[in-house]
Amino acid sequence: MDKKIAIVGAGNLATRVSLELHLNGVEIIQVYSRTVTSALTLARMLGCNYVTNPEKITPDADIYLISVSDLAFSGLLEKVNFNNKLLAHTAGSIPMSELAKYSQNYGVFYPLQTFSKYRDVNFSRIPFCIEGNTPENEQDLMELARVLSKDVRVITSEQRKQLHLAAVFASNFVNHMYSIASELVAEKGLPFDILNPLISETASKVKSMTPRAAQTGPAMRKDQNIIQEHLNMLSGKPRMKKLYSSISDHIFEYHKLPRQTN
Amino acid sequence: MDKKIAIVGAGNLATRVSLELHLNGVEIIQVYSRTVTSALTLARMLGCNYVTNPEKITPDADIYLISVSDLAFSGLLEKVNFNNKLLAHTAGSIPMSELAKYSQNYGVFYPLQTFSKYRDVNFSRIPFCIEGNTPENEQDLMELARVLSKDVRVITSEQRKQLHLAAVFASNFVNHMYSIASELVAEKGLPFDILNPLISETASKVKSMTPRAAQTGPAMRKDQNIIQEHLNMLSGKPRMKKLYSSISDHIFEYHKLPRQTN
Repeated sequence: MDKKIAIVGAGNLATRVSLELHLNGVEIIQVYSRTVTSALTLARMLGCNYVTNPEKITPDADIYLISVSDLAFSGLLEKVNFNNKLLAHTAGSIPMSELAKYSQNYGVFYPLQTFSKYRDVNFSRIPFCIEGNTPENEQDLMELARVLSKDVRVITSEQRKQLHLAAVFASNFVNHMYSIASELVAEKGLPFDILNPLISETASKVKSMTPRAAQTGPAMRKDQNIIQEHLNMLSGKPRMKKLYSSISDHIFEYHKLPRQTN
Repeated sequence: MDKKIAIVGAGNLATRVSLELHLNGVEIIQVYSRTVTSALTLARMLGCNYVTNPEKITPDADIYLISVSDLAFSGLLEKVNFNNKLLAHTAGSIPMSELAKYSQNYGVFYPLQTFSKYRDVNFSRIPFCIEGNTPENEQDLMELARVLSKDVRVITSEQRKQLHLAAVFASNFVNHMYSIASELVAEKGLPFDILNPLISETASKVKSMTPRAAQTGPAMRKDQNIIQEHLNMLSGKPRMKKLYSSISDHIFEYHKLPRQTN
């Protein structure tokens, strides 16, 4: 891969993806971030220069990877002259066509994974969802993705949007369930890691069974006594109680079980 | 372990725990289940006899493991003469003291894990939460648990009840999030396993960071545009939409972010 890359953004995803590209010998020539500290930190790790003014983004890159928050997206890009180079964003929910106004060559480079700045992650199995406005641009982005992963797919904007929504449930909301569990065990002086085998097994199960078949627990068993007891235990936490109730109701509904009345 | 065990129940947990005891050389002398098929299937795998009438439960066991639904619990046990042998239930939310009326020797043998009948699970790291009404009974149950796992702990009924509630969030509700994600990807012709690396990484992250620090996603980023777009995508699924909204709100609240109004 002899293309020169500029990284626009220095958040969780931009950091992990650019470091992994760098480790695999891809040349990163510049980092942009509006925050000096973020720009500097990432640029140092990559051994390249950085800018914090979008107007100073280099014109010399072959591919620009745009990884800024969806809110900052258009405000930022309209300030840059990309000179019709290949522009790819890394966002789940932004249609590829949004990039059309900034360059004649554009596409999407979306890794379906959760990234945190300082956590290393194994890239080799991450599905990279690629889209390009021309076969050549699609090819270039697939080639770049194959440097990082064995799982590179062409995914339409519509599919990617749905994947992003699914990922919110399968990852962001899941992690929030862990947060709640962590708070609950801490209240009784128990360490969070007592839940590790349960968390691992719950995630592993759905690799060999459907989530529908893997479902267990009081809501699945229609055990209203336990559900009621759990709601009582949460009476001092009305929002958490409401959440328990909504998700349990949704499990009933999803598994088409008749609600018990008592 | 030279104690003879009777298994009262033949559900997911009873099946996996008794098979694992059997594989480790513990003598299981009888299975009770009110369903002939369940009783027979499990008894065959264990090479022991079975009964479906609680009054015929053997008086010859040293330890009775009670693993029936919380609803069936008391109705069943009052029909059995346990001859003051050691009685232990495997339930998260039933206080140990509930067993006092059925024997002078009782305790709790609660593995903190999700079990499905036909899925093998690695027992060696499952936390076994043990409680006994006397030091001797506690010891006997700890000894039995140590046959299966390296992680055997004395946990009070109050702690166990809280662990069970935490486990509902960390496992049952998590699995339901997987169910929803699975439905969403299927709608766009995508295979569920495209989410595997994301699911694995989300579960692994919280082994080295707190769930609070691991949180990512639109709700965490206060990205109201994406949240609104996701809610629009769910407009044909009002219950799922409501769930998305409740969990996102709870993430805001938990991370003490001000709600944006728009």
